[in-house]
Amino acid sequence: MNLKQLAHMLALSQTTVSRALNGYPEVNEETRRRVVDAAKRHGYRPNPSARRLATGKTGMIGYVLPTGASVDIDPHFVEFLSGLGDYARSHELDLVLSPADADDQETTYRRIVANRQVDAVYISSPRPADRRVALVNALGIPFIVHGRSEGLDFDYPFTDIDNEGAFHEAARLLIQLGHRRLALINGDDRETFAIHRERGVRRALVASGLALGDRHVCSVVMTEENGYRATRRLLEEGDPPTAIACSSLIMALGVVRAVRDLGLTIPGDVSLIAHDDVFPWLRPENFSVPLSTTRSSIRLAGARVAERLAARISGLEEGARGEVWPVDLVVRGSVAGAKAIPGKV
Amino acid sequence: MNLKQLAHMLALSQTTVSRALNGYPEVNEETRRRVVDAAKRHGYRPNPSARRLATGKTGMIGYVLPTGASVDIDPHFVEFLSGLGDYARSHELDLVLSPADADDQETTYRRIVANRQVDAVYISSPRPADRRVALVNALGIPFIVHGRSEGLDFDYPFTDIDNEGAFHEAARLLIQLGHRRLALINGDDRETFAIHRERGVRRALVASGLALGDRHVCSVVMTEENGYRATRRLLEEGDPPTAIACSSLIMALGVVRAVRDLGLTIPGDVSLIAHDDVFPWLRPENFSVPLSTTRSSIRLAGARVAERLAARISGLEEGARGEVWPVDLVVRGSVAGAKAIPGKV
Repeated sequence: MNLKQLAHMLALSQTTVSRALNGYPEVNEETRRRVVDAAKRHGYRPNPSARRLATGKTGMIGYVLPTGASVDIDPHFVEFLSGLGDYARSHELDLVLSPADADDQETTYRRIVANRQVDAVYISSPRPADRRVALVNALGIPFIVHGRSEGLDFDYPFTDIDNEGAFHEAARLLIQLGHRRLALINGDDRETFAIHRERGVRRALVASGLALGDRHVCSVVMTEENGYRATRRLLEEGDPPTAIACSSLIMALGVVRAVRDLGLTIPGDVSLIAHDDVFPWLRPENFSVPLSTTRSSIRLAGARVAERLAARISGLEEGARGEVWPVDLVVRGSVAGAKAIPGKV
Repeated sequence: MNLKQLAHMLALSQTTVSRALNGYPEVNEETRRRVVDAAKRHGYRPNPSARRLATGKTGMIGYVLPTGASVDIDPHFVEFLSGLGDYARSHELDLVLSPADADDQETTYRRIVANRQVDAVYISSPRPADRRVALVNALGIPFIVHGRSEGLDFDYPFTDIDNEGAFHEAARLLIQLGHRRLALINGDDRETFAIHRERGVRRALVASGLALGDRHVCSVVMTEENGYRATRRLLEEGDPPTAIACSSLIMALGVVRAVRDLGLTIPGDVSLIAHDDVFPWLRPENFSVPLSTTRSSIRLAGARVAERLAARISGLEEGARGEVWPVDLVVRGSVAGAKAIPGKV
C-alpha cells in the first residue's frame, strides 16, 4: 500500500496523512490516531521520497564526524550512540554520519545543509566560542548541542550535565576529608566540559582558602596511558597531591596502575574520584578498590538529544532552551581522610 | 557552479561529468582528470540529488544498527568506525546508521533497500547461517560482510581476520611452554568469530593429545566484570587452568583483577594471552604485567571495508571474494612456563 492508497482509503489528503505519521502538531490527535492505526494495519511505511515530497522532511538526523589518521573517536561516543539510536529507532529516524576533516568541518556542515540531506543536526564536544554552533545557527537548520559552548552572542538549545557542579562537589568532599593538595587529571581543556570541571575544583579550593597548583592540573587525551603518566609525574615530583580528581574511568585505570607501581595505595596514600559515563563494560564498583565517582549516563544523554531533535523537526520544540542535568556523587572505597603529614600541622 | 554549468564549460554531457567525478570505469583517465581538475578549480561539489539523477547513486553507505534497552554497542564499534569514516571521507561517502530492533533487523534492511536510501551496506558480527547475509544477497544491493558467516549455500564478499589461526597459535605457544590445562574466556559463541577462536584452541590441544574441558570454556558478553567472574570460577573450582586465552582486552582487565584478588600472580600462577583490537585508549603493553596478545587493528578493517564498498559501488569490484587477514601473536611478560605441579609428573 502506498501513500495515495492509504489517503484514499481514509478519505484524507496525502499531505494530512503524511503529517499525521510524522507527528505534526497541526493534525488533531483523533485523526493522527486513525491514520497511524490504518498505516499499521495495512503495513504502510512511508518511503523517504514520499515523506520528503509530502512533508519536506528526510527522516534523517545528521552528525559531522571528525576523522583523520590522528583522530581517535572516544569510546564515549558508542554509549551516546546507543541511547540516540534507541530513541531514533522508535521514531523512525536514521542517523547520517558525515565524515569530515577534523580541521575543516565547516565545509561538511555547509554541504549537508545546502543539500537538505538531513532535517536536523547535533554537535558534540563543543568548545568556547564554537564556530560549528555559530555556523549551524546561521544556516538555520534545527540543532541541539550536546554540551555547551561559551562566549557566543546568541542563545542556542543544548543538553549538558553540570560538570562544574560535579567536580566542585567532588573537590569539596576531598577537602572536608582533610586533603589540602588536590590534583586534577582532566581531558582536553580546549573543550568546555574540561574547562567547567577545572572551574569546579578551583571554586571548591578557593572557598577553603586553598588553590590548585599549576603543576597539579593536567590536560590530556583520555587514555589509560595518559592517566598513568600524569599520575607518575604528580606523585614523583615535589609537593605530591594526596587526592586526585580524574575526568574519565579509562584514565582512572592508569591512575590505579601508577599508584600501585609506586608502592602506594588507594586510599591510604592517595584518594581518587573519577567521572563515570556509565559504560556497561567497565564499572567503577569493580575496580580493585571500588572507585568514587561523579556519575551521569551518557547513554541517557544520547536518547535525550534524539528526543529533542525529533521535537524540533516536528515543531514541538522551539527556542533556545538549554538544559543542565545534575550529576550524582557516588562515594565508594577510593576516598579516605588525609594522613597527618609528619612534621607538618 | 552547478553540474550543468560545469558540463557546458567542459563541452561534456552532465552524465559523463558526474560519472567521471564518481570514478566510473567507463570514463577514460584523461577525461576524468580534466573533469576533476575543473571541478576543483571552480569549487564544484555534486549535491546528492544531482548525483542521484546523473548516476543513480546516493553517495551513502548503510549500516543497520541493532538497538534496544538491553543492547550494548561494543566499544570495538568506535574503532571500526574511525577507520571506515576516515576512508569514507576521502571518497566523499556518508554513512547512514539505521537503528533497528535487535530482534528484527530484516524489516530495516528491506526498507533501506526498497527506498534506495544507500548504495551499499555492510554487515558486522555475523553468525553461522546469518539471515542478514542471505537477505542482502537476495535483495541484490552491494555489500561486504565484516567477519564471516558459515553454512550459507552461496559465496559472498567478506573481510575477516584469521581468528582460528590466531587462537591456534596462542594455544600452541602455551602448550609448548608446558601448559596442559588451558581455559578460553570467549565472547558470544553464537557469533562466528568466537566459534573460530574456540576451534583454534581445540585444534592446538588435540594436536598434542590434550582437550579443552567443558568447564574450561566460557562464552560471555565481553565486559570487565564478566572477565573477572569467569576467572574466579575457573580458578576457584577443581582442576584450575594454568593458562587462559581471552577474547578481549577489556575482559583481560577483569582476569588480571581476579588473579590478584585470589593472591595469585601472572605469569607465576597463570599465563594469559588476550586478543587486542588495537584501541588507542587501552594498550596491552601497559598492563601491570605486559600482556601477550593476538593483535589485529580493527580500525584498518573498517578502512578496508569502506574501500571495498566504494569499489563495489563504482563497479571496480565484483564477485564474492572473501579475504582473511593473518593475525600477529605478540609475546610479552604475561606468559611463562607451566610450574611443575607437586606430586604430578
